[in-house]
Amino acid sequence: MQEITQLHAIFDRTRGYINRFMGIIQPIIDAAQDEHTRLYYHHILEEEEQRMGRLQELVPYLENVSGKESLAQLSDRELSQLLSDVNLERFGLHNFREHLELSLYEFQDDETRTTLDGMREKTHADYLQVKEIMASLSGRFSDGSHPDLTDHDEGHDIHQVDHLKASATAAHGVASVIKHAAPAKTAAPGKKGLTVGSLKGH
Amino acid sequence: MQEITQLHAIFDRTRGYINRFMGIIQPIIDAAQDEHTRLYYHHILEEEEQRMGRLQELVPYLENVSGKESLAQLSDRELSQLLSDVNLERFGLHNFREHLELSLYEFQDDETRTTLDGMREKTHADYLQVKEIMASLSGRFSDGSHPDLTDHDEGHDIHQVDHLKASATAAHGVASVIKHAAPAKTAAPGKKGLTVGSLKGH
Ligand SMILES: [Fe+2]
Ligand SMILES: [Fe+2]
Repeated sequence: MQEITQLHAIFDRTRGYINRFMGIIQPIIDAAQDEHTRLYYHHILEEEEQRMGRLQELVPYLENVSGKESLAQLSDRELSQLLSDVNLERFGLHNFREHLELSLYEFQDDETRTTLDGMREKTHADYLQVKEIMASLSGRFSDGSHPDLTDHDEGHDIHQVDHLKASATAAHGVASVIKHAAPAKTAAPGKKGLTVGSLKGH
Repeated sequence: MQEITQLHAIFDRTRGYINRFMGIIQPIIDAAQDEHTRLYYHHILEEEEQRMGRLQELVPYLENVSGKESLAQLSDRELSQLLSDVNLERFGLHNFREHLELSLYEFQDDETRTTLDGMREKTHADYLQVKEIMASLSGRFSDGSHPDLTDHDEGHDIHQVDHLKASATAAHGVASVIKHAAPAKTAAPGKKGLTVGSLKGH
């Protein structure tokens, strides 16, 4: 059941990432000066909230299954449902990677950019590992059926772009109206310039 | 089985909307002059492709179920799975509404804006109807269990904003680098100014 233990570790980690990501993005929503910026980040956070809701069921289920002696203890129907749920979260990891990349275009400060890019890199590695695990698990179906492991992203050059690099030289972030948008905790009390707090006070 | 027939009509309609939406957005991706804009719209289209993939299974299944004499012909497990699938697509409708709203900030031409806003309005009505149908269906569980019908969007003022109005006066769309981004079919041949085709030729 090594694969199930690995899946459990991956989806448990991404739950932690969602929380860190929300802590970074929420101040942008709170400080947004226009409806478009607010809707944009609100939308991304809502999608991550929906993903979190699903993971709160999947992660304990994976923990439970990892305690079994073998996958043979699952019925074909249970295994099929598990693969279907994991496949949905494979897309979830892919979409989260893009949420992180999109957010790189927002932040100018190195600390936030390093945090986002670190989560992006690990999330991409997790996505690839989930794909491998699924290919391995789906081979064990007694009826020979396989879930569709097609990437929606094949043939799209955009996934080969180094968005850390591209965003470093980008003239405007989406929320270019927010001049300084580092999370509150990284803003030193005596630091000059706009902080999220000062923007909120407007 | 009136509810199942209604669900079938809703999700069949949204498949058509996804195709119309893709036809409107793809030219923006093709004409995008920077990686951020390209990633942004590519991401939205990818999410809609994923939704379409799920709907291609759900819609025929709903058609099949609507032919049955009563829901009692479904096992508790099948009904539970159906409600879970429909609940995921309830979120899908909600997210699609926001994709449409976000896109309103991109387009200046009345024809595209009217198309987007029409789909937005109907999608929101569909979303509300799915919610009602689910509440009705979940009451029929013999074990008394209910899916969580909580909105992630409750308490968020952003959903009360008239984005058609807000976007009309917005200074910049996300892809403000694209000066004229109407779909190719709406650009009259002799029309002055940039067209998607002329942008692509750069
Ligand atoms: Fe997204
Ligand atoms: Fe989205």
